[in-house]
Amino acid sequence: MNFISDNTAGASPRVMSALAAANEGPAAGYGADDWSRRVEERFGALFEREVAAFLVTTGTAANALALASLVRPWGAVLTHRESHVVEDECGAPEFFSDGAKLIELPGTGAKLTAATVTEALDHRQPGSFHNVQPQALSITQATACGTVYTPAEVRALRDASQARGLAFHMDGARFANAVASLGCSPAEITWKAGIDVLSFGGTKNGAWAAEAVIFFDKAMAEEMTWRRKRAGQTLSKGRFLGAQFEGLLAQDHWLDLARHANAQARRLSEAVAAGDKARLAWPVEANEVFIILPPALHATLQAAGVRYHPWSTRSLAPENALQPGEILARFVMSFATDPAEVTRLIALIG
Amino acid sequence: MNFISDNTAGASPRVMSALAAANEGPAAGYGADDWSRRVEERFGALFEREVAAFLVTTGTAANALALASLVRPWGAVLTHRESHVVEDECGAPEFFSDGAKLIELPGTGAKLTAATVTEALDHRQPGSFHNVQPQALSITQATACGTVYTPAEVRALRDASQARGLAFHMDGARFANAVASLGCSPAEITWKAGIDVLSFGGTKNGAWAAEAVIFFDKAMAEEMTWRRKRAGQTLSKGRFLGAQFEGLLAQDHWLDLARHANAQARRLSEAVAAGDKARLAWPVEANEVFIILPPALHATLQAAGVRYHPWSTRSLAPENALQPGEILARFVMSFATDPAEVTRLIALIG
Amino acid sequence: MNFISDNTAGASPRVMSALAAANEGPAAGYGADDWSRRVEERFGALFEREVAAFLVTTGTAANALALASLVRPWGAVLTHRESHVVEDECGAPEFFSDGAKLIELPGTGAKLTAATVTEALDHRQPGSFHNVQPQALSITQATACGTVYTPAEVRALRDASQARGLAFHMDGARFANAVASLGCSPAEITWKAGIDVLSFGGTKNGAWAAEAVIFFDKAMAEEMTWRRKRAGQTLSKGRFLGAQFEGLLAQDHWLDLARHANAQARRLSEAVAAGDKARLAWPVEANEVFIILPPALHATLQAAGVRYHPWSTRSLAPENALQPGEILARFVMSFATDPAEVTRLIALIG
Amino acid sequence: MNFISDNTAGASPRVMSALAAANEGPAAGYGADDWSRRVEERFGALFEREVAAFLVTTGTAANALALASLVRPWGAVLTHRESHVVEDECGAPEFFSDGAKLIELPGTGAKLTAATVTEALDHRQPGSFHNVQPQALSITQATACGTVYTPAEVRALRDASQARGLAFHMDGARFANAVASLGCSPAEITWKAGIDVLSFGGTKNGAWAAEAVIFFDKAMAEEMTWRRKRAGQTLSKGRFLGAQFEGLLAQDHWLDLARHANAQARRLSEAVAAGDKARLAWPVEANEVFIILPPALHATLQAAGVRYHPWSTRSLAPENALQPGEILARFVMSFATDPAEVTRLIALIG
Repeated sequence: MNFISDNTAGASPRVMSALAAANEGPAAGYGADDWSRRVEERFGALFEREVAAFLVTTGTAANALALASLVRPWGAVLTHRESHVVEDECGAPEFFSDGAKLIELPGTGAKLTAATVTEALDHRQPGSFHNVQPQALSITQATACGTVYTPAEVRALRDASQARGLAFHMDGARFANAVASLGCSPAEITWKAGIDVLSFGGTKNGAWAAEAVIFFDKAMAEEMTWRRKRAGQTLSKGRFLGAQFEGLLAQDHWLDLARHANAQARRLSEAVAAGDKARLAWPVEANEVFIILPPALHATLQAAGVRYHPWSTRSLAPENALQPGEILARFVMSFATDPAEVTRLIALIG
Repeated sequence: MNFISDNTAGASPRVMSALAAANEGPAAGYGADDWSRRVEERFGALFEREVAAFLVTTGTAANALALASLVRPWGAVLTHRESHVVEDECGAPEFFSDGAKLIELPGTGAKLTAATVTEALDHRQPGSFHNVQPQALSITQATACGTVYTPAEVRALRDASQARGLAFHMDGARFANAVASLGCSPAEITWKAGIDVLSFGGTKNGAWAAEAVIFFDKAMAEEMTWRRKRAGQTLSKGRFLGAQFEGLLAQDHWLDLARHANAQARRLSEAVAAGDKARLAWPVEANEVFIILPPALHATLQAAGVRYHPWSTRSLAPENALQPGEILARFVMSFATDPAEVTRLIALIG
Repeated sequence: MNFISDNTAGASPRVMSALAAANEGPAAGYGADDWSRRVEERFGALFEREVAAFLVTTGTAANALALASLVRPWGAVLTHRESHVVEDECGAPEFFSDGAKLIELPGTGAKLTAATVTEALDHRQPGSFHNVQPQALSITQATACGTVYTPAEVRALRDASQARGLAFHMDGARFANAVASLGCSPAEITWKAGIDVLSFGGTKNGAWAAEAVIFFDKAMAEEMTWRRKRAGQTLSKGRFLGAQFEGLLAQDHWLDLARHANAQARRLSEAVAAGDKARLAWPVEANEVFIILPPALHATLQAAGVRYHPWSTRSLAPENALQPGEILARFVMSFATDPAEVTRLIALIG
Repeated sequence: MNFISDNTAGASPRVMSALAAANEGPAAGYGADDWSRRVEERFGALFEREVAAFLVTTGTAANALALASLVRPWGAVLTHRESHVVEDECGAPEFFSDGAKLIELPGTGAKLTAATVTEALDHRQPGSFHNVQPQALSITQATACGTVYTPAEVRALRDASQARGLAFHMDGARFANAVASLGCSPAEITWKAGIDVLSFGGTKNGAWAAEAVIFFDKAMAEEMTWRRKRAGQTLSKGRFLGAQFEGLLAQDHWLDLARHANAQARRLSEAVAAGDKARLAWPVEANEVFIILPPALHATLQAAGVRYHPWSTRSLAPENALQPGEILARFVMSFATDPAEVTRLIALIG
């Protein structure tokens, strides 16, 4: 029973089929293939407007390329201190942006609020050449804590940052889980709420290695062709990326995969909430479940071969602080999670 | 009939099978999977010594990461002026190395000679802080002109550069074609001839997107884990890269694929040499055929739907200069090239 | 009456004399002149050990070059969130280090404690390639709040960071003021307490533009010759930098200049403490006085043409919080501050 | 007798006087001082149009900041292969531009021709994302060989590069010598001939350390405030830079200094041309004299304590090639060169 991450799974069978179908005959190289072109159109349809979509292989590359497009080397990105760009990308945003700064902000459940953003901006004098200049805001959807921003929350962040001219990026490594959870349209939670650039995640959703940097304003994308190539992210066999997204996007497969993962997370969280063996760290809104485990239960799970990640307690609300011996653990569901395994887990933990 | 490049093909069926086989059950993320580990061992066996192998998705990333490991930001890489790192990577080596310089050297057939390297080094005062410091030599095997370095030639380059302490990199995007052509062991043409780091190409050979940076001295690889991650090249589903190489390396499939491509190139070149319709620009030693086409033949081929790349004439020997109207054209064979198509091409051109 | 900063003054007359004396005849370029060589020896004598000293023109350059020597591009520097490298250098450390990260830590009076450093390190998993790697600790002496670290405090910070192998940098833009305040030897507060590299400030002390990056371990300085040149900080007329430092260092002139500035600050602070018109924000330990001004007094000072900087209240202890209308103001004394002006200021504020 | 370089001299007495005059009372920091403001106006008057002038301390910084303002990280600068930016700045242009490339072009006397620029541009496909993009042209005035571009030659280079949208930079480390030699106005040889940005050299001309990056189109300068600060080139005591330029620019002192240096170079070159002991490598058009010395004369000069630089023979025309034992030597005159010493040198060499 492996609940370590949603990237421990392989690829969805439909993605494999799409790859097999794409493996016939010659195709133009470096993203000039039909698959890549069709996928850009498909993203346009999905988001209800023309977009520029750049396919890459990792979420780190997608985020770093997106942010580098939005800030100057002396610019700064406001973001949550537990965000992936801060904690898990080994400085890729700084590298791709030639040295821009991530300004780390706090917030419960790994979410930023408009008030926090406003305060951070007020602290910094606009236009001073002594300081790095805030030029972008980046949020994660769904967040590192498995929580989700509503369209109204995204809009409020946009309002707080727009006065200072900040561009707005969404790290959507788990965008599918967020959209499936919110039940809104992809457009509503992105550009209609003020997002300029989205990292649309395919890998955790069910691809092998496929992410898209989606610009809702094509003018912002003018330099991406060079940025992507120079970063070693322009695949010569571009159809490999295009085909994976074709597999995901056809017939809303991406949402079905995310709904499955979310549903398993909900099953587990409801069982924990209903039981008295453990407690939830915060609400479960996507495909990740954060559970505070008493020591005995932790031992039981380990003995049963259940695998999960211990997690930083920085996001815990004070009233929810750990008791001695307790640990905070993350359980992640993916498209490939077997409901029977969740049932077995529930039997142990619920 | 598409002879544009060896990256217009998809993946070899065996690579697809390896991917399908790897698609079962959970696996550790970020290169800690069994496939990646096994592939590193396999490379060790192939090269007859322990190696450090870092899998990435593009040749540009492989080369740029390799060179960045060998030079400081104020360092310089000696390389041929028609090499991929100079001409086709949009400044990726400069980006990954934080600004190191590529010193472009001439040479017929896109090959460097020891004399050229010696002269370039003699021109530069060692240790002066006014100048960038030559710290690496990079050659391409097979070259951009489809020619091949022999082990003796590689060793001579090593001897010319060793006195000044240069590290030695081989861009092996078409390493398989070179090894198949030379008939030597992978060890003989690499570390036994003085190569420190090899970009081992999988993509043009028959993978979707798989390259390996292979360090023959593991001490040189100590920082690569961070470099690769920070460059967005550490795939979360690392088995995708490992499985492709397993498909290629098992039972010398990689060499069989390269032999097929080389054989088709040889067929074409022998036909051209035997005929009187066109002439070869220089000897064909791997899977690329460079042909000087008279205008009428060029028109005939275009009309027949044959696709190929016009090529820069910079590498042509003076005695082989183009006549008015002639063009220099590149025809590339891949693992997927249909011999029947080559037969049809020969009928037109031979 | 200008108390804006200690860089509003020109150069000390002795520095001007040293420049005039150095202006005769030819001298070798780019730091190979006698003045630069003598100054390095002088620093060796001052610090009671052989050092490598690199002269540059600004404190920003000195700090950024020093930190870039200590961390890799995926490295991180622990430092106070109000330090000059964080707040006032427009991202120079990130630029010079090719993208390393400054990890901002809190602390009253702009000082770090060993406990804060330990906690920050404990939070970060050593050796993980997902995260940037803490590789250096940087403190400011005297701090941005005009406070001073004692040798014991510096040693405690060293002890807290040494286990994780961090190098230790001191930003000494106001090093002279700190040494004059502590009454210890330069060696005691630097390498004897664990400092590896010091930015020794000349400009605020009384030079035109002269700072020295001093390495106590010459092995750490091996690449600085290239770093400095490549950063445009290697002056062709290097004697200009050397002569300024000769002017400062001869006969402890640097300490006399700092003692003057510190004494004026002490006069003002004692008057404020003795009076009831305003209160000190925190103890005055060097040449800067931070005063909480009631609105009426602020108006009086402005009307009298007294110039000073409003300051961020982030460092104020909660029990010292501003009352409505109050402002926190910084008054800086320099070598050139006229005691008569301080007397006049005291008459207004004391 | 030291003819090593024009940077072996100290500062002109008038520059020292200007510094002394500027050393009274407080002044605003970081370039907001009156001296810096006045100098920008003075440059405006000198160039007969409003300009943006950014003062820095070294020619390397001036050039690197200027070029970084003109090209993107994946951009390229066409320049002569013997230019200072290529040969003598240790990769500073690459560093400041975050990795842009210098494309090295040949040309006799270290000068570029329109034909060479056109050929280099024709070789590169505009807009391809595989290649770095030529975005600027940089020439040196006077050149590294002491030759000078006429306004017509500059205009021809502009015409050759404008079609591809290249910005145009002039490295004027010896701009004064060029203007004094040409007898034209500063405007005629810069913006009226198509130059966008000029590195106006003060140091070799007679300052301690003062260079100005002058933008003729202020829109191009919008980011320079941040670039300069972030590069550690924004002096806190900005009047130090302003005052040096005030000393140089008042009453055409800069031109008088350059005329003196040029006149001494002319005296020497005329004597060499008239004599039969040695021969000139190429015409002397500014303050540098390149002389081919027979071995015996070289020995005589060395014995007499004459100091000069041996020079690369790459720029020698084939018909002027060295005979066995001959060396090519550079003699540089400065504002401080004593005519009596030139007389003594002429006695030896003329």
